[in-house]
Amino acid sequence: MVHVVLDAMGGDNAPKEIVEGALIALHDSDGVKITLCGKEDAIRSELEGKDYPKDRLLIENADEVISMDEAPVMAIRRKKDSSIVKGLHLVKDKQADAFVSAGSSGAILAGGQLIVGRIKGVERPPLAPLIPSTTEKGVSLIIDCGANVDARSSHLVQFAKMGSIYMENVLGVKNPRVAIVNIGVEEEKGNMLVKETFPLLRNCPDINFIGSIEAREIPNGGADVIVCEAFVGNVILKMYEGVGKMMLSSIKHELMRSTRGKIGGMLIKPSLKGLLAKFDASEYGGAPLLGLNGLVVKVHGNATHKEISNAIKQCESFKKQDISRKIADKIIIKDE
Amino acid sequence: MVHVVLDAMGGDNAPKEIVEGALIALHDSDGVKITLCGKEDAIRSELEGKDYPKDRLLIENADEVISMDEAPVMAIRRKKDSSIVKGLHLVKDKQADAFVSAGSSGAILAGGQLIVGRIKGVERPPLAPLIPSTTEKGVSLIIDCGANVDARSSHLVQFAKMGSIYMENVLGVKNPRVAIVNIGVEEEKGNMLVKETFPLLRNCPDINFIGSIEAREIPNGGADVIVCEAFVGNVILKMYEGVGKMMLSSIKHELMRSTRGKIGGMLIKPSLKGLLAKFDASEYGGAPLLGLNGLVVKVHGNATHKEISNAIKQCESFKKQDISRKIADKIIIKDE
Repeated sequence: MVHVVLDAMGGDNAPKEIVEGALIALHDSDGVKITLCGKEDAIRSELEGKDYPKDRLLIENADEVISMDEAPVMAIRRKKDSSIVKGLHLVKDKQADAFVSAGSSGAILAGGQLIVGRIKGVERPPLAPLIPSTTEKGVSLIIDCGANVDARSSHLVQFAKMGSIYMENVLGVKNPRVAIVNIGVEEEKGNMLVKETFPLLRNCPDINFIGSIEAREIPNGGADVIVCEAFVGNVILKMYEGVGKMMLSSIKHELMRSTRGKIGGMLIKPSLKGLLAKFDASEYGGAPLLGLNGLVVKVHGNATHKEISNAIKQCESFKKQDISRKIADKIIIKDE
Repeated sequence: MVHVVLDAMGGDNAPKEIVEGALIALHDSDGVKITLCGKEDAIRSELEGKDYPKDRLLIENADEVISMDEAPVMAIRRKKDSSIVKGLHLVKDKQADAFVSAGSSGAILAGGQLIVGRIKGVERPPLAPLIPSTTEKGVSLIIDCGANVDARSSHLVQFAKMGSIYMENVLGVKNPRVAIVNIGVEEEKGNMLVKETFPLLRNCPDINFIGSIEAREIPNGGADVIVCEAFVGNVILKMYEGVGKMMLSSIKHELMRSTRGKIGGMLIKPSLKGLLAKFDASEYGGAPLLGLNGLVVKVHGNATHKEISNAIKQCESFKKQDISRKIADKIIIKDE
């Protein structure tokens, strides 16, 4: 049984879509137990008239909400009665296995570190979202896209190990190919950080390091685990979103300019929908914050029930595969 | 009259497409004079039977070629008789205004600095390509995408000034909006470099600084001049390419899966072609290496005659608008 705490107040669609996602996950798997953390009244009114297993759905009342524009560390310290702080404490106290939230990224990242705490030996917990790519599984892991800007080479080596464990065990990618983001494929290319990290990754026995990857090869499935510093990871993730959106709106605009285009557009609509599903982040659940003493998952601010229920399933595999112990083993034993 | 030296040996399509691009540019404008630099025999055989103004097309023989996989600085130092080294010397010696090459980026960047030299006061010459975006002009300038990784904040401020001058004078964007690439829009967000640079840009009187830009807003036309360190710029540029390519091939693949999709695909083909032209880098000429005592332009390795002739036109505006003097004015007077 996996016990997941959901931040019922986080994101644009809370609490409605969060509660709905919880109900779907409970329905789909008997191995899931959920605590909805947030304003009890609001949660209860969403649950009204719904049918669900009462023994596997709990409510933890939290009167405060951390908003998107609050300074993260300050908010975590002050709002002791917020859904994020209370939810993370349930994980810290081992009452729950995982915490899932569509709320403030900054607060989730800060709270994960401050409250749940890092696995011994982990220097920085990376945020590791999946992006669509033309690999066999259709996704690659970008690690780190979190708040750890200005990372050091030792951090990147840990990211590579944690990312490998995640892709191998949660996604089922055998011997995942690990690459470091670079501005060329030759070993002498790169900035100081990459030049320092490259030989460390090459000599790391725990991973299948295939060398540098240029950004253009990322959507093209050039690697399963894409290692980079968080600023670069953030740019990769957001360019994906930005270019995709711009292209689709440009295609639409071009098609509307002629009758032929309009008719063609109507015909291709179902195909484009299939394509959009592939690019739909909600298919992959959320981005795990790896290396903590429990799982913390950040889902998109505009997450709907689908992304929430997928994130819960992700927590289930995470627990089943005992990822935290596997990370602890690799980080502690091999690094010390 | 602008005098442009073309590297007749650079890129995948040399010398054929280079020579063809030269002939188009000569035909389109009386104000253009061209020197083709490279193996004279190869150039002459391309010119055979062609009609062109002999007084405006010269040949400078260069027996060596710098290949894509040579170490740039070493190649520039050793291959004195290469088309890149000889071509750049013509600019350095003020015999020509500009040098255009589809050859090794590294050699062009290194040669530009070592041979042509920087304008007094310019700390690092940035490479500044245009990318398609939904601005009024349909493009934004990314500065720097060059070899200057691990830049300092003072470099980024100069990039912002040079980029503004270029967009205002060559592209005709009035009071171009300058933004710095960041992982959030709040001023406290960012890595050390961005946090250091942000107040300098805000206090810079010569530019229209609008603050931070997240990568997702770049294709969306969020700014005219996008300032960043070269590693990040390279990732932005290559993600553009990678995501665009992946999306188009995914669309194609999806359409081929059904008869309806196939018919729709045939109908939308002309519209998609219009769209592709918009994404076609060759429309915008090449990427200038700014801040040198003369203009050096890097065009794509797979450049065809269209990109070459557009790059030559770009050199013409650059000279007409006296960009080098304008850069020198802003950098020297304002910085000292």
